[in-house]
Amino acid sequence: MEIRNHRLTIAYDGTLFAGWQIQANPATVQGHLERVLERCWGEHLTLYGSGRTDSGVHADGQVASFKAPAKFKSLAALQAALNYYLPPQIRVTRARYAADDFHARFSAKGKEYRYRICNHPFHDPFELNRSWHVPRPLNITAMRQAARLFVGEHDFASFTSNPGYARATTVRRVTRVSISASGPLITVSVRGGGFLYRMVRNLVGALVKVGLGRLTVSEVTQILAAKQRRVAPNTAPACGLYLHKVFYPDNFYQEKPL
Amino acid sequence: MEIRNHRLTIAYDGTLFAGWQIQANPATVQGHLERVLERCWGEHLTLYGSGRTDSGVHADGQVASFKAPAKFKSLAALQAALNYYLPPQIRVTRARYAADDFHARFSAKGKEYRYRICNHPFHDPFELNRSWHVPRPLNITAMRQAARLFVGEHDFASFTSNPGYARATTVRRVTRVSISASGPLITVSVRGGGFLYRMVRNLVGALVKVGLGRLTVSEVTQILAAKQRRVAPNTAPACGLYLHKVFYPDNFYQEKPL
Repeated sequence: MEIRNHRLTIAYDGTLFAGWQIQANPATVQGHLERVLERCWGEHLTLYGSGRTDSGVHADGQVASFKAPAKFKSLAALQAALNYYLPPQIRVTRARYAADDFHARFSAKGKEYRYRICNHPFHDPFELNRSWHVPRPLNITAMRQAARLFVGEHDFASFTSNPGYARATTVRRVTRVSISASGPLITVSVRGGGFLYRMVRNLVGALVKVGLGRLTVSEVTQILAAKQRRVAPNTAPACGLYLHKVFYPDNFYQEKPL
Repeated sequence: MEIRNHRLTIAYDGTLFAGWQIQANPATVQGHLERVLERCWGEHLTLYGSGRTDSGVHADGQVASFKAPAKFKSLAALQAALNYYLPPQIRVTRARYAADDFHARFSAKGKEYRYRICNHPFHDPFELNRSWHVPRPLNITAMRQAARLFVGEHDFASFTSNPGYARATTVRRVTRVSISASGPLITVSVRGGGFLYRMVRNLVGALVKVGLGRLTVSEVTQILAAKQRRVAPNTAPACGLYLHKVFYPDNFYQEKPL
């Protein structure tokens, strides 16, 4: 049987999961998906995500790929079967075929994360676990000034949490940081070629401290220049973070089945 | 000490509660609020809600009133204390003083409910427990035509679920029904002088059947005229319903403490 490469777009409410990456015991998003793939195909299939998300982090545009024999009569039938067996907190929002050399992680050329902040004296009960509650008023103008410092190629060593995850280099290129407000809800969007462990949450932690007036824009410049995690503000909580989009070169998938 | 009448506006995610009305064992919204009032005042205070909401039904504008000696130095301090002790799924969004004869239930002259429908092949994972998932496409034009039939004074006996709750009359005045769509999310807003038990969910159940093409507008006319619950479509699920606003005569509260 012909082996096809599959590309899935996935949304999940990460509240109840121990992150993306498969683990022996706790329920993870990858674990749920691989169990459902095995149920559909009758054999274990390895699913490659574009990257991990931590426990409590959400996604509305995670991408994952796997290779398997063509089995369903259409991609719509495949998508419906996966969603039927998955827990309702995880949805396959799109299923496509991809070129043979497409790999959700290694083919990715960039990502966009979004971070939601509920900036109001009390946390909207419909925003629990879906945004960071910051009760004191944030100065968005100051936050936007600080955000501009992150755009471009920088050594983000001050903004990665765990040295155990250190890669060969802590230099990354951030292409855009934008901050929008809608009522009490503030959304920070960060787009870049790649991100270090907890980098977005650490950037947001610093931006919020600027918004609260507890850190100046020039202090952010110093923190970035210091290249040491210990000088930077705390990590923003997981519940506000969403993996929103993964970018790939255009030629890596086919919309229609061959 | 001077006894003051208090008026609270309350939002809650009803997913985890056994409705509004206090009960012996399961956690209810009224039960949580009365426990917190007792904690703040050191004595039991009875809280009157504008009306009950069923298990799983939400509110973003429930109103409740209670009388108690002035104890907090400001309404902001009272609100902060209540929110501090309440579970995060329940928030007091506003606290005011009211005229002595204000009663959240008996002074109400009308209410607005909103009902959210996720009309998409799969249920958005961030809309679980917050909307009714209707996977097949709804014809909103037909739903709006049927909705117009409900406006005005009618005997809604076909649209109330439990005869045990029957009042002296099943005649009610509906002043407005509007249906809006934003992406896959359809919101039905129903405003009226008063509502029978499960009336809004029963009206929405009929409207959705019309939207699916399984019921004609003229059949809705017949169902309304029949004045019998058994001829009407099923009740829409609780998770889509929100008590949005309670209307009172304007002279029933004072914005500022006396």
